[in-house]
Parts: sequence; C-alpha cells; structure tokens
Amino acid sequence: MELKTIEELKEILHYLPSIGLKSAERMAYQLLEMDEITLQNLSSLISNLHKNVTVCPICGAYKEEKCFFCDDESRDNTSLIVVTSFKDALAFENLKSYHGKYHILGGNLSPTKGIGVNELRIDLLLSRIEKENFQEIILATDPTIDGETTALYIAKLLENLPIKISRLAYGLPMGGHLTYADELTLLRSLEGRKFLK
Amino acid sequence: MELKTIEELKEILHYLPSIGLKSAERMAYQLLEMDEITLQNLSSLISNLHKNVTVCPICGAYKEEKCFFCDDESRDNTSLIVVTSFKDALAFENLKSYHGKYHILGGNLSPTKGIGVNELRIDLLLSRIEKENFQEIILATDPTIDGETTALYIAKLLENLPIKISRLAYGLPMGGHLTYADELTLLRSLEGRKFLK
Repeated sequence: MELKTIEELKEILHYLPSIGLKSAERMAYQLLEMDEITLQNLSSLISNLHKNVTVCPICGAYKEEKCFFCDDESRDNTSLIVVTSFKDALAFENLKSYHGKYHILGGNLSPTKGIGVNELRIDLLLSRIEKENFQEIILATDPTIDGETTALYIAKLLENLPIKISRLAYGLPMGGHLTYADELTLLRSLEGRKFLK
Repeated sequence: MELKTIEELKEILHYLPSIGLKSAERMAYQLLEMDEITLQNLSSLISNLHKNVTVCPICGAYKEEKCFFCDDESRDNTSLIVVTSFKDALAFENLKSYHGKYHILGGNLSPTKGIGVNELRIDLLLSRIEKENFQEIILATDPTIDGETTALYIAKLLENLPIKISRLAYGLPMGGHLTYADELTLLRSLEGRKFLK
C-alpha cells in the first residue's frame, strides 16, 4: 500500500547514485511536507537545469553564461590541468594556488565500465593542445587504476610534443597516520621519497 | 566558485532533514547528469505534488483520489489506531493483521518544539469518536517522552467514554540481544513481564 506519486518520486530519486530505496522514500515524504513555494522553486530549477547549465564546448566544464575557465582572460594560458570531472577542477580552484586552464575529460578510461577513448574528451584535448600554447600539462586524473590508465594513455599520445607533461605526486595523505596507510600508498611514498641531504 | 543553479539546488535540497550540505551538493551534480526526460518527470512530480497528494479531512492520512482507510468500506470500523504519522499507519498496514481504521495526529505534543494541542488533529479525533462507533482505540504514538505524553493526554480526554483504550506494549525488540537493550527498555520489559504459569 503506497501512494502512486510517492512510488514514482521514489523511483526517480533512487536513480541518484547515493540514494538507496529507503532514503528515496524518506525524501519523497519530506518533499510532501515542504511548502508550496519551495516545491515550485525546486521543480523549476530541475526543469530548467539542462537549459541553464551547459557544457563548455572547449574544456568540458559545466557553465552558465560564461565558462569559469575558458572565458576568464586573466588566467595563465600556458598551463593546463587535465581532470576527470568538473568537481575535480573546482577542488584545484579551491586551493587558490593554480591559475591556469583546465580540461575536463568527463570520466576515466575503463574497459570494465565500457568507457573507451571516444566517450572522453580526448580528441578535444588534442586539438586544444594543437591550437593553444600550453607549456605544461598536468595529468590530474584519480589515483586509481582507471585514472592511472587514462593518464598514461594521454601521456603516450603527447610524448613527442615539446611540452612538459606531469602527473600528481603519490604518497601519504597529510594529517594521516602511517599505520593506517594502505600498502600501495606506502609503497608509492617510499618510491617517491625525497632526499633531504 | 560555484554555479548559481547548483547553489540554489543545494540550498533547497539541504532543507530536507536527512541531507547535509555535502550530500546536497553531490545530489545537485547528480541531477545535472540525469537525462532530460527523467528531469522533466521529476520536475513535474514535484510541481504537482501538493495537487495530487492531499490530506484526508477525516483521518489526516495522505491520499490521492481515495483515502486508503476512510474510503475503504471493507475495513472494520469498530477499532481505531491513533498514530503520529502516515508512515506509522503504513507500518501497521504492512503487518496485514489489523483491518480497522486509523487517525493520524500529524505529530506528538512537544513543548520544546512548540507543538501544542492545536497543532495536532486532536479535535478531529474527538469529533470522530463522537460520530463513529469505535469500541477500541489503540494509542500507537512513539515510545518516546513526547509520544508518551501525547498518548497519556489523549487517554485522559477519553477516560469517561465507554470505549476500551489501549497503548502498545513496551519491551525488548524481537531479534535483539538482551545485553544491548537500554535500561529503560529492559525495565519496561521486566514490569510488563507475562507469567507463563
């Protein structure tokens, strides 16, 4: 016994990766308790989402009127960070120490998930590199097998260009305890050790 | 640096009691990844929510065309379960062993939350009891201080009526371990012990 509307809401909310069926149901009832104005605001935001937020045809970032990165002329256009997602680019922005450009791939290469070269913005990356004048490209995909594969694949494509290519450093996360580091992280931190003298 | 639309979505989603700011942000981006048809379905469900789901003027349950409880003539109309919320009524329905009516209070009396007698459907309950022909009223509010206060308040109002009034049993939850029961539950299970011979 369940209201049809609640069932339908539940089904859609359950599509969201982080929402289980129980949470979706709870959310549906919580929406029912919201005031009418809030519901109409939410409905209209959702309805206009793809109209108001589009993907930048140059770098792949989400944008409203202007792309934060490509339409900002004050940015250093000699360096490029290549990331998996728009949120990863925002994570770098929050550091406030990098002022260059970004390229958002839209995923990592993953044979198991059926994500190949054509599913990512790799062609777009190559044509940008040809047209724009980057001196360094920082491959900042995730420190996972898929992220690593993607970085190596792109590095290979770019190996003959006279441009510096770098990859983020691996090692112990700051503030953590050595005891709790996984073996692979520990191994990488040993391999990447810096000599102090 | 954040998209305006994402900020606005985040703010509304964060209204939902179970969604923190980080989850609201994650959800906003996940919505952005949904296909257009799903977004329009979701938007329209939300926009029409209060139009399609209303509150039954008799028992306080959420209803679409018909009230599951009041418009079902096959139900036993001699007994009434009084609950805090519609979902609590559905929890009893799932047992499939009670076939009487329900009354949904819409909350518990709670001086700290500013919920008084007028915020609940207590007047409506009294006028139903006057008009309908209940022989037993089961007070099934939560086993919390507020739920208990509400049950006792209603029991007091009804004490002079020739109707059986009962309260749900307290005790150990089935399937749990005695070691993990809190003191109050254990005390209630002792007080309510049943003699086997």
